[in-house]
Amino acid sequence: MPAEAPRTVTACMLIIGNEILSGRTQDENLRYVALGLNDVGVRLMEVRVIPDVPDTIVGTVNAVRKAYDYVFTTGGIGPTHDDITSECVAAAFGVPLHRDPQAVAILEAYIPGGLNEARLRMATVPKGAELIQNPVSAAPGFRMENVYVMAGVPAVMKAMFDNVKRALKGGAKMSSRSVRVELAEGLIAECLSKLQDANPDVEIGSYPAMRRGSFGVSVVIRGTDEAKLDAVLAELKKGLVALGGAPQDETAMLAGAVR
Amino acid sequence: MPAEAPRTVTACMLIIGNEILSGRTQDENLRYVALGLNDVGVRLMEVRVIPDVPDTIVGTVNAVRKAYDYVFTTGGIGPTHDDITSECVAAAFGVPLHRDPQAVAILEAYIPGGLNEARLRMATVPKGAELIQNPVSAAPGFRMENVYVMAGVPAVMKAMFDNVKRALKGGAKMSSRSVRVELAEGLIAECLSKLQDANPDVEIGSYPAMRRGSFGVSVVIRGTDEAKLDAVLAELKKGLVALGGAPQDETAMLAGAVR
Repeated sequence: MPAEAPRTVTACMLIIGNEILSGRTQDENLRYVALGLNDVGVRLMEVRVIPDVPDTIVGTVNAVRKAYDYVFTTGGIGPTHDDITSECVAAAFGVPLHRDPQAVAILEAYIPGGLNEARLRMATVPKGAELIQNPVSAAPGFRMENVYVMAGVPAVMKAMFDNVKRALKGGAKMSSRSVRVELAEGLIAECLSKLQDANPDVEIGSYPAMRRGSFGVSVVIRGTDEAKLDAVLAELKKGLVALGGAPQDETAMLAGAVR
Repeated sequence: MPAEAPRTVTACMLIIGNEILSGRTQDENLRYVALGLNDVGVRLMEVRVIPDVPDTIVGTVNAVRKAYDYVFTTGGIGPTHDDITSECVAAAFGVPLHRDPQAVAILEAYIPGGLNEARLRMATVPKGAELIQNPVSAAPGFRMENVYVMAGVPAVMKAMFDNVKRALKGGAKMSSRSVRVELAEGLIAECLSKLQDANPDVEIGSYPAMRRGSFGVSVVIRGTDEAKLDAVLAELKKGLVALGGAPQDETAMLAGAVR
């Protein structure tokens, strides 16, 4: 019996918040989640940024939780009137909200000023939810089935995501190789296209960018087979040299950033 | 006859590219488009980041172009094999691709090395499309009905967007006021909630953020009526002072950034 190809495990991220859509706030969470998921063999397939509108949140959560293995939401779980993610996730799952005793205990221990109704909103989660610990500011996130509900403040979101990441069940992990060359994209396009056609099991991406005042291209090869990536990288470099380029390996230089 | 409330003109942005979803590239275009749309009275209601997968692009373009007044796409219009946005937009509209003579002329004048098949892909647009000029690197974007197709490289995207922005037909323009206060969100939540209930025609957002080592809150009031915004701001400041805060006006300080 031939070995089965490992299944691709997929994820979708929902960034909930008017402050991103209005341009007030530059999102920093997408990239952190994308890189972290990659570490555990989960592929981020889609991101949606949506406003603080109940029907939109409920409808979107229900659409994406069925379409992807994992869903990660950021934003809207604080104590103020515009924090409506918890009630919308409860509505999406058709379960009531309830005050979680463990979350109440966490908040009681953390907040010196004591709890009030607004703060107790942060201990109010959909029935059946499992808490996600928050080592930065205590107020927990939660998981409902495959939906992970996290804070929007980057320091808090990152700590929560680090906590849940370890428990995710990933598939084959994507690795990558990257080279930079100071040739126009239009000159190397044919070479890349042939290389992609000959190697359908890797994904070749071409990303032009200005650097030191001139346009160059970074070519990224992604795939799950390390030996195959090295072989395609070698072929790519040969092709770029033949076109008059001097390809610089970026794989090591940008490890942890270029994936 | 009472004056009709100005209609809200809506937009959706599609960020097309594996490099954003893999975490390789930090998106810089969303915020630029969000702030620019605000300037002309168009509200960005949703953003989707999607991969370089034809069915996904075609399906998403068709879903959002019917749901919103304007759609702006970024990414996937270069000369390489992974640049598939133009053909996907043609498929979404059910029209053939064609080589646009004006685009060919632009590229001929700009590219000293001359045109090849790869570069001519950048002059190949859906039949009926109108070109969007690119003062940075010549290769144009295009508009098909309410869908504006732009480059992903930020310098190019921004120049294209500046070109199309002027011609958009916006509705009522959103303005904003913002104050920062060094009080916990849980303490000011009730005050904000009452203010929001009493003023349903403005949108009050509460954004906690670490600054100089302590958690404080920025409160943003958005709406279309300047006098109303000033009135709600005054009430808000009074409420925050009553809670022991010393609210700092951020409206002017962050003009152009906080909206």
